[in-house]
Amino acid sequence: MSFGVLIYPGVEELDFQGPWEMLGMWHTYAGGPAPLLVARSLDPVRCAHGMRVLPDADFSCAPALTHLLVPGGFAAFDEMQQTDLMAFVRRCANAGATLMSVCSGSFILLAAGVLAGRRASTNWKVVNRLREAGVEVIEQRYTQDGPVWTSAGVSAGIDMLLAYIARTQGEAVAGQVQLHAEYFPEGRLYGPVPDGLARPAYVDGGS
Amino acid sequence: MSFGVLIYPGVEELDFQGPWEMLGMWHTYAGGPAPLLVARSLDPVRCAHGMRVLPDADFSCAPALTHLLVPGGFAAFDEMQQTDLMAFVRRCANAGATLMSVCSGSFILLAAGVLAGRRASTNWKVVNRLREAGVEVIEQRYTQDGPVWTSAGVSAGIDMLLAYIARTQGEAVAGQVQLHAEYFPEGRLYGPVPDGLARPAYVDGGS
Repeated sequence: MSFGVLIYPGVEELDFQGPWEMLGMWHTYAGGPAPLLVARSLDPVRCAHGMRVLPDADFSCAPALTHLLVPGGFAAFDEMQQTDLMAFVRRCANAGATLMSVCSGSFILLAAGVLAGRRASTNWKVVNRLREAGVEVIEQRYTQDGPVWTSAGVSAGIDMLLAYIARTQGEAVAGQVQLHAEYFPEGRLYGPVPDGLARPAYVDGGS
Repeated sequence: MSFGVLIYPGVEELDFQGPWEMLGMWHTYAGGPAPLLVARSLDPVRCAHGMRVLPDADFSCAPALTHLLVPGGFAAFDEMQQTDLMAFVRRCANAGATLMSVCSGSFILLAAGVLAGRRASTNWKVVNRLREAGVEVIEQRYTQDGPVWTSAGVSAGIDMLLAYIARTQGEAVAGQVQLHAEYFPEGRLYGPVPDGLARPAYVDGGS
């Protein structure tokens, strides 16, 4: 198993760093794969909020991946038009990799043709945009459709990875990862949310 | 306001990357400070699960900080014995900065003298160790005691930052940050946990 995590300039930090932590705990405590950060070059990648991260592999030197996680951010809408990045995602898809997206990373999977005929989740801000592109959008924290896993925005990638680990490795392994990451978050809702915005539908019992 | 996030070799990724995302959303959507990563040098820092991150400032060039967040990881127990890092934390404390720790970062605050006479939270694995050091340990997701905020392990730093923002900036700002980070996690408990281990007390209604 070789698990790649795609990064690009402007990527939203927690979109990939949340799943990374789950992968790291899986690797450390339960024999999961050591994840790799993959980018178009080995230069530092400046994320949406300014954190600079070093990739482990570029598109040409990355090993064959069995899994690729595609995070989002506003920059995803630029990247879905970049031929080098899209060729890399398609190469992974064509090789049969399990594909995952977080947040607007779903649009990169869409552009790669991976979401055709599938159900998918995405950031609450772009639910309609993905729906208008012909995807059956599921307003939940995450959705599995065959080998394609997609999550809602930013922190939802954490929940998706735990669910993926539970589905493929069993409850006990997911429980161990959850315990070591101490991912037992408060169910606290802060508010009110700004005028004109609303919480995702699943928050108030949608799923 | 200038918000520093301390990093060091072996730091647990999500300990600082979770709070970083909350800070980033606060900055982007509600005028919060742009956070800075501070380390002993500007060289890349290799975290616990292998992610390499570039610091924004070192101990000598960092601006005066009004806030310092100290993440944890096994490496925190080494760092609490390093004179350069401890001098930096003490300098921030002596200048009146608000201090925060995540996970075993609490032991760095302990070594800096910041936890004397205070209540604090920490990772479930080291609750007894912190208690034996004379700290009144609160087995909750996070604890505020005056200008010192401490959280439980790894992902708990996210909850602490949201609570800090709510307390100091009001519910509406915290609600906005929560919404943009889509931090409405599942309350799903995976299990069973391995023999000899147990979930933190607060998970089953302890707080």
